[in-house]
Order: sequence, then C-alpha cells, then structure tokens
Amino acid sequence: MGLVVLKFGGTSVGDVERIKNTANRILEEKKKGHKVVVVVSAMGKTTDQLVALSKELSSYPSKREMDMLLSTGEQVTIALLSMALAEKGHSAISFTGWQAGILTENIHSNARIIDIDPNKIKKYLAEEQIVIVAGFQGATENGEITTLGRGGSDTTAVALAAALAADKCIIYTDVTGVFTSDPRYIPGARKLEAISYDEMLELANLGAGVLHARAVEFAKNHQIPLEVCSSLVKESGTVIEEEIAVEKSLIVRGVAFEGAITRITVFGLKNGYNNLSSIFNKLARRNINVDIIIQNLTVGEDTYLSFSIKNDDLRETIDILEQYQEALGFDHFEYESDLAKVSIIGSGMISNPGVAAKMFDILAKNNIQIKMVSTSEIKVSTVIEENHMIEASRILHTAFELDSVGQKIK
Amino acid sequence: MGLVVLKFGGTSVGDVERIKNTANRILEEKKKGHKVVVVVSAMGKTTDQLVALSKELSSYPSKREMDMLLSTGEQVTIALLSMALAEKGHSAISFTGWQAGILTENIHSNARIIDIDPNKIKKYLAEEQIVIVAGFQGATENGEITTLGRGGSDTTAVALAAALAADKCIIYTDVTGVFTSDPRYIPGARKLEAISYDEMLELANLGAGVLHARAVEFAKNHQIPLEVCSSLVKESGTVIEEEIAVEKSLIVRGVAFEGAITRITVFGLKNGYNNLSSIFNKLARRNINVDIIIQNLTVGEDTYLSFSIKNDDLRETIDILEQYQEALGFDHFEYESDLAKVSIIGSGMISNPGVAAKMFDILAKNNIQIKMVSTSEIKVSTVIEENHMIEASRILHTAFELDSVGQKIK
Repeated sequence: MGLVVLKFGGTSVGDVERIKNTANRILEEKKKGHKVVVVVSAMGKTTDQLVALSKELSSYPSKREMDMLLSTGEQVTIALLSMALAEKGHSAISFTGWQAGILTENIHSNARIIDIDPNKIKKYLAEEQIVIVAGFQGATENGEITTLGRGGSDTTAVALAAALAADKCIIYTDVTGVFTSDPRYIPGARKLEAISYDEMLELANLGAGVLHARAVEFAKNHQIPLEVCSSLVKESGTVIEEEIAVEKSLIVRGVAFEGAITRITVFGLKNGYNNLSSIFNKLARRNINVDIIIQNLTVGEDTYLSFSIKNDDLRETIDILEQYQEALGFDHFEYESDLAKVSIIGSGMISNPGVAAKMFDILAKNNIQIKMVSTSEIKVSTVIEENHMIEASRILHTAFELDSVGQKIK
Repeated sequence: MGLVVLKFGGTSVGDVERIKNTANRILEEKKKGHKVVVVVSAMGKTTDQLVALSKELSSYPSKREMDMLLSTGEQVTIALLSMALAEKGHSAISFTGWQAGILTENIHSNARIIDIDPNKIKKYLAEEQIVIVAGFQGATENGEITTLGRGGSDTTAVALAAALAADKCIIYTDVTGVFTSDPRYIPGARKLEAISYDEMLELANLGAGVLHARAVEFAKNHQIPLEVCSSLVKESGTVIEEEIAVEKSLIVRGVAFEGAITRITVFGLKNGYNNLSSIFNKLARRNINVDIIIQNLTVGEDTYLSFSIKNDDLRETIDILEQYQEALGFDHFEYESDLAKVSIIGSGMISNPGVAAKMFDILAKNNIQIKMVSTSEIKVSTVIEENHMIEASRILHTAFELDSVGQKIK
C-alpha cells in the first residue's frame, strides 16, 4: 500500500475505447490498495488539431493565447477519464493544472514548475478517490494559464510524485520501456530492466525520446523511482532509479544517435576567451542551441573554435557570424552540414577507463571518420558523417555487447 | 465613447472564417472609440460533440465533470478570437470564466452568478486592450468550474455589463432582432425596434428563444440597455430597455406560442389550500415545471384544480398523483394532452382595458376553444388545442395590427 502517480500519454487516451482501457489499467493499480493519482495528456491528435486551427488564424499566435488554447486538450481528457472511472464504479475527480495547485513561472509555452500545493489532491486521496490531473499545464501566481513545453505531462507526473512523496511514478507510453538504442534502426536493440537517472538523462538529452529530460531531472532531484512501461502491452517496463545493479556488468548501457547536425569552425579568433562567450551569447539570444564545443589554442593568441548546431539553424548562424565578424574579431569561418552525433552512455564508464578509446578504435577500423568528440563521466559522443550514423550505431551496439541474443552481427 | 459588452453566439464563431468576420465586427465597434469587452460561446457544434463523447463513456456523467468538459468549448473560442484580433493588429487578451472573476454558486450545470470581480478586466480595458471572456462559465469560491445552463453566455454578457457599468450590451445572434412572433410560422411577423424588459421577459419565458430569460432579468435589475442584432446581416436590431416609446401606439407587441402542453384537472380536492401547495411541492421536487394554474372553489369545501405541464412530464405527474392520491385527498383526476399556449404580450395593456376580451372574442369567432386562461399585467395567455396553435397565432398577430405592411391577412 502506498501512493502511486500514473501518467498516460496521448495514445493511451486517443479515443473512447482507449480511455476505457486506461480506466481499467488504473483500477488494477487501485485494487492493489494504493492511493492513485493519474496524469493525462490530450487525446491523440487533439493538440495538433488545435495548433492547425491557430495557424489558420495567425502565423505567429501569441504564446499566451496558445497556452489558453492547448490547455483545453488535457481538460477534455481528465473529464472523460473521470466519467469512465465513475461508470466502472469508482469515484474519481478531475483537476486542471491550476486547480491541482501547480504553480509555474510566468513564461508561456515552456514554463517550469515552481511549486505544487498538494493539499487539495491529498484531501481527495484521503477519501479514497482517484485523482486525475491535467498534464502539461499549470498557472502563474496571477492566474495565467501556462504550459510546460514538450513532454510536459511527464514533468507534471514526476513533480506531483515529488510533492506528494509518492512511492513510485509510472509513465505509461507507447513503447515497452527504455531500450539500449532505437529498435526502429538497430535490430539488436533490447529493453533495459533498469537504468540510472544520469544515464536516462543522457539518453533523453541525446534524443532517445522516451522521457522528457526535465522530468528525469526532476525525478533525480527528488529521488522518485520512475518506471516506463507500455499502456498497451502487459509486460514489465524499465525502472529508473539512483542505484541500479549493473545488469550483466554492462559498461555501456545505450547507444543514442541524432542526425541533421552542422559543424561550424571559426578561424583566427583574436583575444580568444572574451569573444568566445560573445559568440555564444549572440547565438543563445536567437535561440540557437549549440551542442558540442571544441576550442584549441594555437600559436600566438589566435584560436580556432568548432561547434555543432542543428542543420535548421545554419542560415541564422551564418547571418549572425557575418553580422558580427568585425566585433568578434575572427578571420573567416567554414561549415560542414549533414553530420550526425553518435553516443555511448553508461555509468560503468566512470570506473572503466578505455571505453572512449575502444569506441574511437572501432569507428576507425570501420573507416568512419570522427569529426568531433565530447565526453562526460558517463557518455562519449562523436560527430561523424550522417550517412554512417546507423551503421556506426549498429556496430557500436554490437561491440559493446548490447545486442539481444540471436541478434549479434557476425 | 463608452464601454460596450458584445456577445457572439456559437454560430458567429462556428469556423475560422466566421471568427475572422466576428473579429472585424469587434474592431468596428472598437474604432468608434469604445472600450470593448467580448463574450463568446463555444464554436458551432463543439458542445454537442463533447456531449456525444461523454455519452459514449457514461449514461449519467457527473455534472461536475460535464462542466469540466464543456467549459473547454468557450476556452478554445476565446483563444482563437484573441489571435484573430491580434492578427488584424489589435491587442486582445482572453480570460476563462474563473480568470474573469465570475463567481457562481456551487451548483453544477446550472449555476447562478453570485458576484463578479471586474478589476482584472478593468486593468486591461484601461490599456485599451479588447478583453475576451468565455461565456457560459464561472467558478465557485473553491475553484470548481461551473456552467450557467442554457443561454448562459447571454447571462455572462449582461452580468459583465452590470459589473463594469457598461453603457450597452449588444447580443449578436443568428436572427436580426426580436420579432413580433416567430417568422418561421407567422408570415407577417416583423422585427421590433424596441421592447421593454418586462415584455422581453414574457417573450423569453414564453419560448421566443432569442434571449435567455435570466439574462433579461439581470439586465432589468441592473438597467443595462440591451440590443439584439444579427452577426451576419448589417442592420439595426432591437433595443431592450425600461422605457420605450410605444411604437405606432401598439398595445400588443408580440404573439408567442408553445406546443406540447398537457392540462391536468384534479377533482374533489378536500380542504383546498393546504393540499394545493402539497401537490405543487411534490411536483417541484421532481423538477416538473407547472405553468398555468387555475383553481375554483365550488359548493361546500371541495375544490377542483387545473394546471398545465409539458407533455414530456405527464408520465411522472400521473405517477405522483396516483402515489399521493390519499394523502392529497382528491377524488380523481383527468388530463388532456397536445394542447398549446398562445399569448399576447404588451406593456400597453396596463392602460388599455379590454385587450383580453378582444383576444377571447377573436378566438371564439374563429371557433377556437379556450381551455385555460392566465393573465399578467402585460400578458394574456390562452391554452387551446395544439392543432389550432399556428392558426390562432396568425389571426391574433393580424388582429392586433402586428403584421408588416403587405403581409396582412385579408
């Protein structure tokens, strides 16, 4: 007996039948004797439809009004799910983000949760009601409706679990758990029984897409055990927690990859350090996300600097560099597009030196040129040509013994 | 220069094009130099679609969850309308019912507005923004979302006009104003330039359907001048206010009719007065609306009593009468279904005796039997057979000189 927070994504509540199935899944959990809080997203394609409507009216709709518009999606789901549970004989009560006490900063479309007042929810849990909360949304101190950005419902679930000191937070999604790599491209990819918060954070940030990084970060900060599992298939998912037994003493626990990357190299940068921060400030102000940064001091005081951005941001980055060339004081710049980032992730790397070297060696033996490298304690990322991305990922997946049995590449 | 509240119904915001047209209409009003508050309903069929979804999940969905569900309809409209106005270059801000400070009693699906805190709206009006408020909804003191029942958006508009001491409240709808009778059935029916609150109240209560009675009552109590006009056709509508010049010295200003009525007659009611209230209490407790009541003292202490109900309530009324026959102490009862109520309305009646007599006379001359009569200072209602309803209404419309020119029945 404890308190669990369950989160169901848009697919799990995509139509009336699925809402009924989700209600059954919730009742199973309730019958175990737990107090149950449920967080839901908008039904299937609702958000897309609302976005499409707004686009018909405005090319740049105000973020405040977009939040007003999109937050209705989850509100519809919570009401319907509550009705479905009542119909099955269990009393349930739904709350919007603001009703559930979810206080956010005053930023529209991508607000962070500042605080949660859990008292209203606790009151209804004490009455053994199932409490259903609209994901993805909150309100500011002034009663402005805000949304939490991509993957926001995951964050709602984890934040509620933290505020309620829940025993567990289960994220029901359309995959059966966290995989060693993307099974759509890596045939040997298999589901992990467990993964640490930090590994999951690296995977989430590297585009593995199962859980939003902000939700994982929140879970780590509040030490909320997370479980990712399928809302459709009945099998155990992946547990995400602080200390996990290193499964089969795997050093590397996942291979992540992401394409459409461009490397920019700036040559002859005078008076290095000041101008370095100037460049990245100017890019950040235009919302251009710089990922890997490599900087080398050369002869004299000149520096050259490489950094990676998304292909989509190239045009704007070039504009900025050309506009500020004189102010930033560099000679010229070059770029190379259609690159990819391939990374290996695993907490075991900390105590196992030589993992990065092995990775570089494997890529070299397969004639895959490494353009950039970035490492953290539990991750090694390489930038290579995009047309080698899947090949490199498969080879690394096999070489680090992640393939499921019978899937080894000979 | 003043403050106007504009209300647009579901048809006026039924799709993206209509929302754009509505935005233009609002901007015209704004350009006159007014401060503008706009109240909108849900887009066209949205409410029906949400109700249909709920019915798929539950035969008797909780009223609280229905309010949660349905209130999203207006929230979508306010966001889209605000975007449409911004796109046309005018800054606008949208508020849900609770954000706009609309406090209601704690009753779901049919709450009354208790109070409105107009300060937030005033703040944005002072900045010359167009303020858009979701109609039909509010919240209780505890932050529960409520809805105001049928025609609730009209009430929102009038209540806001009162709270803001607006100079005028304009209800844009799919008709061009208030008519002397329903033009779908009475060919000579024509639009009135003006009508008093009391006349409008009688018309609204008698099923004329243009404005919700609660909204008219609110307007009368706060002396808010109302105007009803079309959101599609550009022509002046009907003004509703306290003192109106009697147009062409018309004594009768409208003919209203309503079918599907049943008359119940209870015979041999002992100890009249006590049991009278008992009957109506029992009916009221089952939500059966009793309209006209006629009661006659006969020889001794026995009374007979007639009252009218809707055909739909007949089954339940019979049940109640049979169940309580002994307790209520009557001999037997009879009923006659498929009757209709035809009424004439006009403030001029107060100072013009003989109007009721003229009405009875006209009906008698046309061989239409009057089954019941009820009068107020500004209204005479008759109950007749339903198959004479339209005929009687047309004849009365002509006889009281309401027909538009060229439409007189010879």
